[in-house]
Amino acid sequence: MTQQKFPAQDAAKFSKFEPLIEAYKKEAVAQMQQFDPAFYEKCIATIPSENELDTEPIDARQFLKLLSDEEASIVNDLTIADLTRKQLEGELTAAVITKAFIKAAIIAQLATNCVMQFLIPEALARAQELDEYLKENKKLVGPLHGVVVSLKEHMNFKGKITTASYVAYLENVPDNEAVSITILRKLGAVFHTRTAQPQGIMHLDTWNNITGRTRNPLSTRLSPGGSSGGESAMVAMHGSIIGQGSDIGGSIRAPAAFTDIFGIRPTTKRISLLNGLSSGKGQESIVAVQGPLARSIDELDAYMRAYINEGQPWTYDPNCIPIAWREPNLPPKIKIGVLYDDNLVTPFPAVTRAIRETVAKLSKNPGFEIINLKPSWFSEEEMLDIYTANLKLYTCDGNEIQLSMWTPSGEPLLPLTEHYMKFGGGKKLSIYENRMLNAQRDALKLQVQQKYFSELDFILSPTYNGPSEIPGESLYWGYTSFWNLLDYPNVTFPVNVAHDKETDAGIPELKKNEYEKMVWYKENGDVKYDPQSYIGGPVALQLTGKRFCDEDVVAATKEIISVLGVERR
Amino acid sequence: MTQQKFPAQDAAKFSKFEPLIEAYKKEAVAQMQQFDPAFYEKCIATIPSENELDTEPIDARQFLKLLSDEEASIVNDLTIADLTRKQLEGELTAAVITKAFIKAAIIAQLATNCVMQFLIPEALARAQELDEYLKENKKLVGPLHGVVVSLKEHMNFKGKITTASYVAYLENVPDNEAVSITILRKLGAVFHTRTAQPQGIMHLDTWNNITGRTRNPLSTRLSPGGSSGGESAMVAMHGSIIGQGSDIGGSIRAPAAFTDIFGIRPTTKRISLLNGLSSGKGQESIVAVQGPLARSIDELDAYMRAYINEGQPWTYDPNCIPIAWREPNLPPKIKIGVLYDDNLVTPFPAVTRAIRETVAKLSKNPGFEIINLKPSWFSEEEMLDIYTANLKLYTCDGNEIQLSMWTPSGEPLLPLTEHYMKFGGGKKLSIYENRMLNAQRDALKLQVQQKYFSELDFILSPTYNGPSEIPGESLYWGYTSFWNLLDYPNVTFPVNVAHDKETDAGIPELKKNEYEKMVWYKENGDVKYDPQSYIGGPVALQLTGKRFCDEDVVAATKEIISVLGVERR
Repeated sequence: MTQQKFPAQDAAKFSKFEPLIEAYKKEAVAQMQQFDPAFYEKCIATIPSENELDTEPIDARQFLKLLSDEEASIVNDLTIADLTRKQLEGELTAAVITKAFIKAAIIAQLATNCVMQFLIPEALARAQELDEYLKENKKLVGPLHGVVVSLKEHMNFKGKITTASYVAYLENVPDNEAVSITILRKLGAVFHTRTAQPQGIMHLDTWNNITGRTRNPLSTRLSPGGSSGGESAMVAMHGSIIGQGSDIGGSIRAPAAFTDIFGIRPTTKRISLLNGLSSGKGQESIVAVQGPLARSIDELDAYMRAYINEGQPWTYDPNCIPIAWREPNLPPKIKIGVLYDDNLVTPFPAVTRAIRETVAKLSKNPGFEIINLKPSWFSEEEMLDIYTANLKLYTCDGNEIQLSMWTPSGEPLLPLTEHYMKFGGGKKLSIYENRMLNAQRDALKLQVQQKYFSELDFILSPTYNGPSEIPGESLYWGYTSFWNLLDYPNVTFPVNVAHDKETDAGIPELKKNEYEKMVWYKENGDVKYDPQSYIGGPVALQLTGKRFCDEDVVAATKEIISVLGVERR
Repeated sequence: MTQQKFPAQDAAKFSKFEPLIEAYKKEAVAQMQQFDPAFYEKCIATIPSENELDTEPIDARQFLKLLSDEEASIVNDLTIADLTRKQLEGELTAAVITKAFIKAAIIAQLATNCVMQFLIPEALARAQELDEYLKENKKLVGPLHGVVVSLKEHMNFKGKITTASYVAYLENVPDNEAVSITILRKLGAVFHTRTAQPQGIMHLDTWNNITGRTRNPLSTRLSPGGSSGGESAMVAMHGSIIGQGSDIGGSIRAPAAFTDIFGIRPTTKRISLLNGLSSGKGQESIVAVQGPLARSIDELDAYMRAYINEGQPWTYDPNCIPIAWREPNLPPKIKIGVLYDDNLVTPFPAVTRAIRETVAKLSKNPGFEIINLKPSWFSEEEMLDIYTANLKLYTCDGNEIQLSMWTPSGEPLLPLTEHYMKFGGGKKLSIYENRMLNAQRDALKLQVQQKYFSELDFILSPTYNGPSEIPGESLYWGYTSFWNLLDYPNVTFPVNVAHDKETDAGIPELKKNEYEKMVWYKENGDVKYDPQSYIGGPVALQLTGKRFCDEDVVAATKEIISVLGVERR
């Protein structure tokens, strides 16, 4: 990638922020140490060095052995439903649960660097409050009573530094709170960590100038995906039972896929985005969403139901639509269109294998009818036009808002940031041009409804062109961003397939378009793909449904994984 | 108003379109003549000259006497429910109903010039088809079986010239159909006319370069409002039983108010906008809506229920939200905040009198609690800022899309068009500036929810700063556009008050801001308001409710008009 200097970067300015960065990181370390100094020492002694984690394909979940048996059982074996039931029955307290998850979160942090800010004292106080409530009232506060939830850091947390990974915001302390946090708290959740996102919140990777790079729990030298990669690493490490991420181009789904867990990108305006920090202010061409990541689809379902039906986000946020999380409505035979390849960027062999194996299993099951979308999907030329329009919409303000958030700190721009800034040319468009792109988007949204969803119930496709990506190499967003552009809901789910360096070594027939070249080739024209690089990287698939039929996408995912034999992670 | 030349205007180019205009208008006359030559001659002989209608305060509804008793009974006395029931019971046929409404529409056209295009042959054929269906199947096609609906012309009608009043589109024949038309047809509606809208569809008046000016049925020298002024004139003249208009700044509500009927501006995305012609393509800062105008609130209610619950617009249009038109949910005591004056433009005396009289009646009724919003409403300074932002959002593309639609014909720009083009400065803003205005809008939307709708059920306010306006003088949009900006639903309804040239002659205490000056003063500083000008002009009020609670706004309007004794018009 050509290095290009943007006006934001200014080493002299940035150096003045370095003490703030140090203080911010020190605070996280201090909280871990203070919580349980002996445990912390044991972790440090056991978990390999940063250098080793960064260069070896280490499965960091092994370090959960640092927990006691009781702690391990809480974070590994109990679902949200189990945890709440056991509290109600007096078998567990919120305090015990919270402490177990704090320990797991410390392990997660030391192995994957997924945390930006710990909230340990707050979590302990909250757990005590919940225990007292239960004792006095003989009932739970709500369906997430004592459930330990991690939060993507860019959601405003009242009274706490909120940076969204912008160095310039290291002294930003919001006096309001993300509506999602308010709702989750009302439902009984305990918050112990705020997790990392990449610079500008616009990489399918997680790397920023405050806390550095987050690692993939399944293979620490790989990326956990992004931008909700702090969340995915945390949840996959069992550091929290569920986490709230956000997605404007794949930022829930890529991390869920890269870490072999579940994630949902709901239809927009069902979950509140209110009170958060990002560059998305007033941008309506591609609307961001928040949504959960978890180790099972049942827990995603329960969370969405509780958040929407009991949380009623529209009572806090006038941009949310008052529709309940309803019972699903699946046909007796589920009709799934399969997109093996989007006709723009050929997936890596492990992905093609995963989708073929999945389709083979579903095809044998009488509950599914499978239709190959290859003959009817948009052509390479059409996809080129669609994806370029998609990218232009991300950068059509000429990155002016992003630059206004980077410039005050002079922070260096990371390679994936520079990559993002050049999306679609990265030029400042006129409002007229923006509107014409919106109109193109709307026409496409209609075409997809008429051409596919009139016949099909769901579309099954890759979540990403490869298994978990090499850090800094998540270049192509198309498999996920296509659905952000059009705002159809989807779920990413594991299919029990991981990259295999032998099986997945072959190079498929490749196309010649610019995006294929970007993903598959080096600048000198050699193929870049090296099966060695992806050791330990899982593959996940993506199921997309009709707009506002998020419930059905979740329900169909349950049916699919039941056929595949995919268990809670 | 200073005359300013915009590049769109080109007399030489325009002259080439004049034959198209003549042919277009001739077709409407020919349809009227051919339908019933004798009736047409009788109408021409009875209805005064255009000049007389334009200069005198004539109540054009008197010309309905040109109908036979049976025809008069159909168009004057029967509701949608009556019409469908009588067809089912064999007392009336769709053909008889349709013919009666065609005659009333001809009277409406000759008195108010509300029609752009007649669809008389299509309406007669459709009526016959419906009658045959009923005969064969012993049931109605749907809840609008045989109900004669007029359509604002900018909705695409397959195979028919569709201009949206842009001269350049006089040969535009769409090959698709507005989703709303598809839905209404499915419900059983008969379409006999497509009604006028102003140039650019952006006046609160109805005046264009194809069909000229539309008159107010209640006082023909006044404006019927706009931009759905063809609809309001048609419905108020009993030329159709209900009409579909659209609203981006007051375009359903101002015309409903000016003609003393009912109109609803629903929350966006409940009624489909798909397949129509306007300058709104891809514009998302202030989103347009379609909605009905009718002579009673019960008919608006029935129409919305049928359109949404049976029409299911989301199955055609992925931008529509799948929420049913539900049963209303009103509290035992309805809490209404009253905004007598928006603190920016002082209403004319008739409006102030209307709202005071209304509040006096409601205050005596135990079903209502009335709160004066004067002390808590936004200050004059805040409103100046809000309204200027609101106006900027209308023109922030520097009117580029509008100009691209006017320029090919070189059509002259009418005074209210030039007025509109200068809204908020009329300058081309950057995407960044557009987003910052969107963010300001979102903050305000939240503030209105938190500050007002947390306590109140509804807000009652003027629909417009005056009674029905003088043609070309509808300058201030604030009373309606405030709610388009924030997307809260409202209903405009009559309150049995009309301007009185003696009672409403006094000049209230006035403010000094630019919008107050624009409305109240001549350029030389004299007060412009002349009570003589508004003879025959009714006043209507506007009730606003919580987002997506359109059903409750309709239900509360029923309660209010029952107290006021407002009957079907």
